Amino acid sequence: MRTDTIVALSTAPGISAIAVIRLSGKEAITITNSLFKGKDLSQQPSHTIHYGSLQENGEILDEVLISVFKEPTSFTKENIIEISCHGSEFIIQKIIKALIRNGARLAEAGEFTKRAFINGQFDLTQAEAIADLIHSDSEASHHAALNQMRGGFSKKIAALREQLIHFASLIELELDFGEEDVEFANRDDLQKLLQELLTTITKLTDSFQMGNAIKNGVPTVIAGKPNAGKSTLLNALLNEEKAIVSDIPGTTRDFIEDEIHIEGIRFRFIDTAGLRNTTDTVEAIGVQRTKEKLKQASIIIYLFDVSQTTQVDLEEELTEINALSIPYLLVGNKADQKHSTFTMPVHYISATTGEGIEELKQLLTRSIHTKAYKASDTIVTNLRHYQNLKLAQDSLSQALLSLSQGITGDLLAMDIRQALFYLGQITGEITTDDLLSNIFSKFCIGK
Amino acid sequence: MRTDTIVALSTAPGISAIAVIRLSGKEAITITNSLFKGKDLSQQPSHTIHYGSLQENGEILDEVLISVFKEPTSFTKENIIEISCHGSEFIIQKIIKALIRNGARLAEAGEFTKRAFINGQFDLTQAEAIADLIHSDSEASHHAALNQMRGGFSKKIAALREQLIHFASLIELELDFGEEDVEFANRDDLQKLLQELLTTITKLTDSFQMGNAIKNGVPTVIAGKPNAGKSTLLNALLNEEKAIVSDIPGTTRDFIEDEIHIEGIRFRFIDTAGLRNTTDTVEAIGVQRTKEKLKQASIIIYLFDVSQTTQVDLEEELTEINALSIPYLLVGNKADQKHSTFTMPVHYISATTGEGIEELKQLLTRSIHTKAYKASDTIVTNLRHYQNLKLAQDSLSQALLSLSQGITGDLLAMDIRQALFYLGQITGEITTDDLLSNIFSKFCIGK
Repeated sequence: MRTDTIVALSTAPGISAIAVIRLSGKEAITITNSLFKGKDLSQQPSHTIHYGSLQENGEILDEVLISVFKEPTSFTKENIIEISCHGSEFIIQKIIKALIRNGARLAEAGEFTKRAFINGQFDLTQAEAIADLIHSDSEASHHAALNQMRGGFSKKIAALREQLIHFASLIELELDFGEEDVEFANRDDLQKLLQELLTTITKLTDSFQMGNAIKNGVPTVIAGKPNAGKSTLLNALLNEEKAIVSDIPGTTRDFIEDEIHIEGIRFRFIDTAGLRNTTDTVEAIGVQRTKEKLKQASIIIYLFDVSQTTQVDLEEELTEINALSIPYLLVGNKADQKHSTFTMPVHYISATTGEGIEELKQLLTRSIHTKAYKASDTIVTNLRHYQNLKLAQDSLSQALLSLSQGITGDLLAMDIRQALFYLGQITGEITTDDLLSNIFSKFCIGK
Repeated sequence: MRTDTIVALSTAPGISAIAVIRLSGKEAITITNSLFKGKDLSQQPSHTIHYGSLQENGEILDEVLISVFKEPTSFTKENIIEISCHGSEFIIQKIIKALIRNGARLAEAGEFTKRAFINGQFDLTQAEAIADLIHSDSEASHHAALNQMRGGFSKKIAALREQLIHFASLIELELDFGEEDVEFANRDDLQKLLQELLTTITKLTDSFQMGNAIKNGVPTVIAGKPNAGKSTLLNALLNEEKAIVSDIPGTTRDFIEDEIHIEGIRFRFIDTAGLRNTTDTVEAIGVQRTKEKLKQASIIIYLFDVSQTTQVDLEEELTEINALSIPYLLVGNKADQKHSTFTMPVHYISATTGEGIEELKQLLTRSIHTKAYKASDTIVTNLRHYQNLKLAQDSLSQALLSLSQGITGDLLAMDIRQALFYLGQITGEITTDDLLSNIFSKFCIGK
């Protein structure tokens, strides 16, 4: 762990009213002080702001506000200086270069957060949640990241670890007595505890499907014959959304073209413009492409024109969709017109009048079981956490099997230790340099 | 002047480590307090920073740092709150919307700076300099904007006004005595003073050509026959620059492709790829285009191959260039080869070896008289200031003429008042709503 003083632009680049340059490290205050004309920053209390100018060799770089945070009451638990300067890239470069000349080093991606983690500000899942929070773009992803950042997930894992450590210590106590063949831990109680732990972990791993939907959006395909009204439906779904998303100047929301948010979940619509009548062999390539796109979907809205489709037609149309094994909603369009009835559960809409659209949205959210995300349930959104939980799950299943087969305590202890290792990797009690640099290199510079 | 509380994102939009949302107005602290879970912000001293979370209806919006600035010791001289939140556009929108629901209003472009001006934080030229500073992209423009922001130009204008007011009061004193035909002001002294003022103002208006070059760069064209080595020269000029411009991650400098900075001045190279042999009639359109581009130039580098050109050739080539009435530098390339001599002043270079390139750069800067900008001389960079100075100049010339013709004091006073009016418009002593909204609407939102 390097303890030198790092510097980076922490706000987004671009011309703006103000920009914030951040320094962290033992010399953060001293280095800034050497350029600052104003009060002596080293004499100022933590969490105070000071006006003055930055000057180098008699040349004024900018008039600035300096925020002073003293160790250990700062984000990184080191001395931190935040320089609020004019939002010009020319000025930002000038200031950062001057700070580097005076002893600072350009920060690596995520290095501020990495230092905060290493200095014990929070655990690894909380550090990871900061990056998720910055990238959150829906109610649900925002909620999940914030919950994780505030330690919701950490607490869950800590509770699991505590129980496992208790379990392991009992087993190991037995091992200490070696040949004496004592049983400090009642085997039935152990089995019950392991089963409880497994249930909790399984609940967490099961939540990953939804966690992934929350974090990355739900890939959704509207499929159906060309005249079924697919684009009218997409517009009906999108238009409403466009009205909801208000635009505050200065922020861009360029993703609303083909996405809708329902109850905080982002549904990403995959374009299948290539979907055509499959009986036409010349269009085989187009059909192939559509099939590939369909396979990316987490859910398919299969749209058909009820006024033009019979029960037999529909059954035929659905053969291919059924073969995909992807959940789909059967949606009958033009329900305001005269139409046949169907034996399958069909949701009736009119894409042009808007009838049934709201209900369709409810069906979409229900299909991915999103009702739970608002509750206090912890949801796994991170692939790394999911993988470690899966490995812990395997170890515990193995332990449970060993227990039922009367396997000796030392093998049991090994499985438990293994599970503890995987859980420890999640929260960062157990880390490697590779793991850390892999995680933090995905952060922004300046975070 | 509205005194309600305004809010805007003050940092650049985009995903980043942090973003800063700024509020200004009587209720800035109260409105933020209504969302803030942490210390009571209204009880905190000015220039302090407080950690906590923003919450609305039990939902956490983000964990934030709040900076408190109390009137009148803030930028706008009103209460100011700066919210440092995570740099997610989703979060920024959420927070701004919640603040608006709690009584804030979205700020107009430049409204923070406008309030600072109206509340007497600085004069109009200083307010304008802030926008210039944010857009500054060269040493010289940065230097000029900073000097103006710190009141360099204001002082100059204030001194002029003071002398004029003194002058006007003497004249008006005479008018008060009406028919008595007294002369409080010695006419010779008056004439001398007016001449001095005119000299100062003329020096300022003369500086505008350079001020404009400083602010907007110097449009530069490299012209010459196709084989003269134009692109080699451009590369020779640019390559050096590319090495100088280091890139700090997080900032973009995408303008370096066809610009060079010499002694802090930006020379923008205008592409004249269309320049061909003018004797070819089919290429008449291309030649026309090139001529139009040549007319945009402030300076032309006319490049020719000394090894292939005679005195007579050169005289012929220059006919068209001379007709443009744009200053040009005559540059002879391939000076390392055997060549003729010329009667015109030619700067010899070798674009391939780099010989003479440094000296050419010096010639470029000298051609726009830029030596002065580092000195304490005030340079007019703003068209509005230039126009008002020109009008003041006219009024004073008129006064001087009246004086020499023995025109009565009341007409003289009118001219002087007129000049005072124009100078007052520069610094904002005299303003209209239109003028202000015109100036501040060009600012960023959040500034």
